[in-house]
Amino acid sequence: MMEYAERMKNIKASDIRELLKLTDRPGMISFAGGLPAPELFPVERLKEITVKVLETSGAEALQYATTEGFEPLRRQISERMNRRCGTCLTKNNILITSGSQQGLDFTGKIFLNEGDVILCESPTYLGAINAFNAYGPRMIEVPTDNDGMLTDELEHILNTVENIKLIYTIPDFQNPSGRSWSRERRKRFMELIKGRNIPVLEDAPYSELRFDGDAIPSLASLDREGSVIYLGTFSKVFCPGMRIGWVAADERILEKYILVKQGADLHSAGITQRNISMYLDTYDLDEDIVKIRSVYKGRRDAMHNALRANFPGESKFTHPEGGLFTWVELPVDIDTREMLEECLENNVAFVPGSSFFPNGGGKNTMRLNFSNMPEDKIKEGIMLLGKIVRNQGD
Amino acid sequence: MMEYAERMKNIKASDIRELLKLTDRPGMISFAGGLPAPELFPVERLKEITVKVLETSGAEALQYATTEGFEPLRRQISERMNRRCGTCLTKNNILITSGSQQGLDFTGKIFLNEGDVILCESPTYLGAINAFNAYGPRMIEVPTDNDGMLTDELEHILNTVENIKLIYTIPDFQNPSGRSWSRERRKRFMELIKGRNIPVLEDAPYSELRFDGDAIPSLASLDREGSVIYLGTFSKVFCPGMRIGWVAADERILEKYILVKQGADLHSAGITQRNISMYLDTYDLDEDIVKIRSVYKGRRDAMHNALRANFPGESKFTHPEGGLFTWVELPVDIDTREMLEECLENNVAFVPGSSFFPNGGGKNTMRLNFSNMPEDKIKEGIMLLGKIVRNQGD
Repeated sequence: MMEYAERMKNIKASDIRELLKLTDRPGMISFAGGLPAPELFPVERLKEITVKVLETSGAEALQYATTEGFEPLRRQISERMNRRCGTCLTKNNILITSGSQQGLDFTGKIFLNEGDVILCESPTYLGAINAFNAYGPRMIEVPTDNDGMLTDELEHILNTVENIKLIYTIPDFQNPSGRSWSRERRKRFMELIKGRNIPVLEDAPYSELRFDGDAIPSLASLDREGSVIYLGTFSKVFCPGMRIGWVAADERILEKYILVKQGADLHSAGITQRNISMYLDTYDLDEDIVKIRSVYKGRRDAMHNALRANFPGESKFTHPEGGLFTWVELPVDIDTREMLEECLENNVAFVPGSSFFPNGGGKNTMRLNFSNMPEDKIKEGIMLLGKIVRNQGD
Repeated sequence: MMEYAERMKNIKASDIRELLKLTDRPGMISFAGGLPAPELFPVERLKEITVKVLETSGAEALQYATTEGFEPLRRQISERMNRRCGTCLTKNNILITSGSQQGLDFTGKIFLNEGDVILCESPTYLGAINAFNAYGPRMIEVPTDNDGMLTDELEHILNTVENIKLIYTIPDFQNPSGRSWSRERRKRFMELIKGRNIPVLEDAPYSELRFDGDAIPSLASLDREGSVIYLGTFSKVFCPGMRIGWVAADERILEKYILVKQGADLHSAGITQRNISMYLDTYDLDEDIVKIRSVYKGRRDAMHNALRANFPGESKFTHPEGGLFTWVELPVDIDTREMLEECLENNVAFVPGSSFFPNGGGKNTMRLNFSNMPEDKIKEGIMLLGKIVRNQGD
């Protein structure tokens, strides 16, 4: 028998990925994945763009390139962030990654020794738990309400727990809960971490997808010490199949990410980086995003209406002002993981909420994605799901 | 000050990458990078292919996809390997990676605890040293001659050193030396490792680029125990800018690579995977490779003739039968790293050989790439380099 490294004991198959395989079945109504709506991908425009990239710089686009990423794209991203998030970045603060998942892995590699502590929201993103687990950390969940991490609890943890090496946050339309941190909570959070030299990872894949309410400043824009590391991606506002995301950070910290990227895969694909860069130059991505928001808002509303009509009265739902997910808390005697098989047999899928609690719990919760199914399928699927939920415990 | 993980002390900037930045300068004759000849990239065909992919499966190509990779491509790769390398693989043995550099990183992650031992050739590939260093191993260089690892020395090490967790090999047209392992040496190597349960990494980016001599069986084809893990890539026979490589391994081992890939970046870009798959279906990659071989053979010959004409008589060169690199051993009193600055000032670049010795040494050696420059530039560059070499110690 081959002998594996100790860390492999911590690396387990993700429930979501295993589930996604089943949800490929024809007829399945899936609220499981975190998939954007493919009918909104700019396929026609990309045909034109990719031909133009190959015509104007084919050899360069297909050759090895610098680890940092395609310089014009890094500049475009920094300018876009400065405009949208109120940051003060240049291209030298940007490293292009293969999706923001890669940024999560690199963050673990850069900051975590075995046994170090990560603070995270409760619940938190499953893909981050998986990425960090490779580095053997202890994850402490900071109690979280509808306005974000509870700062009193956070302060207590910061003052009493040793070896805190990272705070992992998703302040906008969190995965899985759909919640956003309030402006006040963000300010208080930044005050609390001041002077502690603990890196804060702001994972922001959904932040441009706000349907309701006013924009709230990113943690990166409130940062005066260079301790916030921001992960962005084109996966949710453009398309995920190009696998292009980025890390925005203080130059000294970014240097570490560049070194790690070099060893990990040399650089992200030049051809896809140049496609996105030319797309940003040629078309108005903000306009595309207006369209995406309006479609997702309709789907969120369809899901919420269906949830209210079909789920037991004691169920609680979050009310996301953007993003891709709604979070459901069912009566405590229901175990959503046990319910899942019956749901899949009935052609409706979701992710059991317990997957999102690194230390267990949340058995009666579920994550529902609303971005990937049209409104009629959402209604039909929630009706099916509601029927199975209501039959639990019979 | 931010505190980084212990492993970051082992992760250093690669000489090659830093050098490559300088070699972008106009007028520079660079033998430094490992770059294929961009004029051979099938740019026109890719314009047509990528439009066809977007027309026939745009939404799927741009959506999230399975971690394992695009199934038809995995099948094509397994069939191609069976035909070329005499292996018996199916798609279930193939994981698509973002270049074979990613396969190196994953191998370190899967097999290495801090302090574990890797055996490697001496010299060995710098990018592998960098990837493995993140996991804190001890690298032991097995003495190597023109026919590969010296098997008596290897046997002695296998019998006396504890905690050997990986043997890293590049049997074909090795980077940096250009040498290939003889058939007899490969067989003896496979006998030696039999029953030891030590994974053998066969890194084979150049194996299809043989100009002279007969094909020699891959280690993977000689493997009866499932202990050889094969890394392949389209970077050298197609183009590197797509960042598509693969791991071919026993299914139980591949399962670990899939888990690690999931946490590292979810999956490689669907659009580039589908482009390559459709290219393989539409065109004859083997024909392209015949062309690449003939160009590189001409360049190798140009380099060797120029080396013989311009370098001091005591210099030794390897005689690669394929691949991208020639290795030069200069008189022992010459330090190629000290010489480099003068060379860059004179617009000619190479990589000092000492970078390829994980435990130091090789000060009087250099790696020369012959694939990226046309023959006249090779002559000119080697003439320049020879002049500087001959002036050393004056």
